[in-house]
Amino acid sequence: MDITKLAGAAKRASGVLAGASSTKKNQALLEMAEALERRMGEILQENAEDVAAGRRKGLSGALIDRLLLDEERVHGMAEALRQVATLPDPVGEIVEGWRTAEGLEIRKVRVPFGVVAVIYEARPNVTVDAAALCLKTGNAVVLRGGGDAYHSNRILAEAITGAVMEAGLPGDAIQFVTTREREVLVDLLRLTHLIDLVIPRGGEQLKEFLVEHSRVPVIYAAGGNCHVYVDRAADLRQALDITVNAKVQRPGVCNAAETLLVHEAVAGHFLPAVVKELSDRKVTLYIDQKARDHLGEQWAGLALATERHYATEFLALEMAVKVVGSVDEAIEHINQYGTGHSEAIVTQDLESSRRFSDAVDAAAVYVNASTRFTDGAVYGLGAEIGISTQKLHARGPLALKELTSTKYIVTGRGHIR
Amino acid sequence: MDITKLAGAAKRASGVLAGASSTKKNQALLEMAEALERRMGEILQENAEDVAAGRRKGLSGALIDRLLLDEERVHGMAEALRQVATLPDPVGEIVEGWRTAEGLEIRKVRVPFGVVAVIYEARPNVTVDAAALCLKTGNAVVLRGGGDAYHSNRILAEAITGAVMEAGLPGDAIQFVTTREREVLVDLLRLTHLIDLVIPRGGEQLKEFLVEHSRVPVIYAAGGNCHVYVDRAADLRQALDITVNAKVQRPGVCNAAETLLVHEAVAGHFLPAVVKELSDRKVTLYIDQKARDHLGEQWAGLALATERHYATEFLALEMAVKVVGSVDEAIEHINQYGTGHSEAIVTQDLESSRRFSDAVDAAAVYVNASTRFTDGAVYGLGAEIGISTQKLHARGPLALKELTSTKYIVTGRGHIR
Repeated sequence: MDITKLAGAAKRASGVLAGASSTKKNQALLEMAEALERRMGEILQENAEDVAAGRRKGLSGALIDRLLLDEERVHGMAEALRQVATLPDPVGEIVEGWRTAEGLEIRKVRVPFGVVAVIYEARPNVTVDAAALCLKTGNAVVLRGGGDAYHSNRILAEAITGAVMEAGLPGDAIQFVTTREREVLVDLLRLTHLIDLVIPRGGEQLKEFLVEHSRVPVIYAAGGNCHVYVDRAADLRQALDITVNAKVQRPGVCNAAETLLVHEAVAGHFLPAVVKELSDRKVTLYIDQKARDHLGEQWAGLALATERHYATEFLALEMAVKVVGSVDEAIEHINQYGTGHSEAIVTQDLESSRRFSDAVDAAAVYVNASTRFTDGAVYGLGAEIGISTQKLHARGPLALKELTSTKYIVTGRGHIR
Repeated sequence: MDITKLAGAAKRASGVLAGASSTKKNQALLEMAEALERRMGEILQENAEDVAAGRRKGLSGALIDRLLLDEERVHGMAEALRQVATLPDPVGEIVEGWRTAEGLEIRKVRVPFGVVAVIYEARPNVTVDAAALCLKTGNAVVLRGGGDAYHSNRILAEAITGAVMEAGLPGDAIQFVTTREREVLVDLLRLTHLIDLVIPRGGEQLKEFLVEHSRVPVIYAAGGNCHVYVDRAADLRQALDITVNAKVQRPGVCNAAETLLVHEAVAGHFLPAVVKELSDRKVTLYIDQKARDHLGEQWAGLALATERHYATEFLALEMAVKVVGSVDEAIEHINQYGTGHSEAIVTQDLESSRRFSDAVDAAAVYVNASTRFTDGAVYGLGAEIGISTQKLHARGPLALKELTSTKYIVTGRGHIR
């Protein structure tokens, strides 16, 4: 497979897509939704091949579930496409505009990046989601999915590419990389003149691979080692609800909490209640010595937390617990072990909330709310391609705006310097 | 030299700096200005050593001039510092803010990056400029300057670091890398947990080195192969002024024009006039066969342009000339050879200007104005650290805002999902 040729075709298509009207792009999204539903049978058949191969290979139940498509899930993908069609088009927005002293008119206008490569792992729906968000923002997309979902991804890409062409836009705007060779991926990551941006969707390993090998700019949506800090001035009822919600409502996602920090002044009251509640919900706890002292005999059987626990994103019903002496100690712990994703404080004290919000280095800081809220749709930003934990370009939900760049357009009347 | 220790000290200082008030930061900037003027003698003495060494080494006159400091230039640096102190502080700006349906209050707030490394070449004033812009934006800075300016850079860094401490801010916020070993630079570029951003200030070679070796996100301020396109509907008086200005007003800078594209419908009238004017101003021209046909006998001695000329950023009194058949041919040429910096069209035709503005892939597009306007101060953005030709995070002038990231601060009343 000639990856340079493929990326070149995407680059050429990106020029057409950048100038496409919102109406045409939305029409393509609706055609894509219809194509998925029309070709349901084929899609489920190809997916069944992947699932069978995955079972033979001994993939875990959780991974098989990620891979699996059924009618409901395919309808869900189609609905997501129709949803993206309803969102406002960020391309062409005048972000800022002014006139200089000499009378030059300056406009800073939102424009597509050009070609966005999305590198992803198990879930086949990413094929459709990523293509939809890129198309909506006028970007051509190069899709490189995981090997386990190969047949599913290929048929999905084929279906949506056909739909794009039916809507009168270039089919080359969606490129599906059919090979899994690592060398081809590395080559792709070096095409700085053809690829404008790479977005990895996957675990820390994938991110590390891209940071190491990519010469193309990367926005990474990385892991979340998130914390809930219960301050001495916390409303303990809120603290209990928030801690339990942040841990158990959906433990496998990046904005779930992994460590609970409790101010020593309220540890005596709060810890027995929260430990009971979490234990009742089958959360395995790793506590520090101070917490053990506060909890007493009844919970003497809980394991002691180690450095490793504080540094782990469990993504499961496990949680580390630590007693701290001050809001500053909580901040220090978070800035040391956190991954800059979502961090919460529970407090009624204005100065503590301010100090925490200012000093915690993360994409999203919560005051009296669960870390679980970090999400493009919840924020009202519409569909997202992930949560950025980096500081360049976009931090937090990567929604439509974040898939665009800007350009200055400056108009004069023969102005010279 | 322990680069990890140095970066670690910068990281710790960045925490203090992020919380520093605008008043205190501005005070530090004013102290820095005073320190430069107070230590004028030492600075000129150290600079004289660099200049002497440069002469022994056989540096060109242009490079010696870049290196050279005199009283006027040091006063100029001090004035630039006082100017930065007057600019608004971007840190703390609420970029956006809204309330969700569930009553969560979301604010997107401008925050410093943390630690910014600036890698630069000849001019010693970058030591002061980069430190000032980083300090103003609450970032600690790691300065790694060119070897030829070593003594100048070291004394300047020492003077401004002392001033920062006098203002009650941590001296560790300005770190000067004293070694020139390439391995140390490569190590620095891998400290992803300590360095948040790297900005190269130098030529394409330095940029390529960083793209290859940096694991830390890079914003590069790269070269400009800029064009002026004279449309068939151009006001030819404006076209002449703009072409001459874009080429000769300051040929050594990145927003100077390197190639002139002329629509064939006006080539017969325009080319003789512009070629005469440019030749009178000592510009060496490389023209294509069509231009030669239009120009006739009198200019038969001009060299023919090759691919290499179209691809070159001359940064000198040289210019390539090409006749094109349409605005689309001009756009295609620019998107093939341009570096995405500044591109101008001269036209009175609305559709041509719109087509050009939309389709040219560059940081700044000019309609009836010279490419020379791309500059933070000219745009009214204040001091800049360079012009970004990349699409991620910042495109065009890198002023104060572009040296910041954002953070979401979300406030609830015990909100859970």
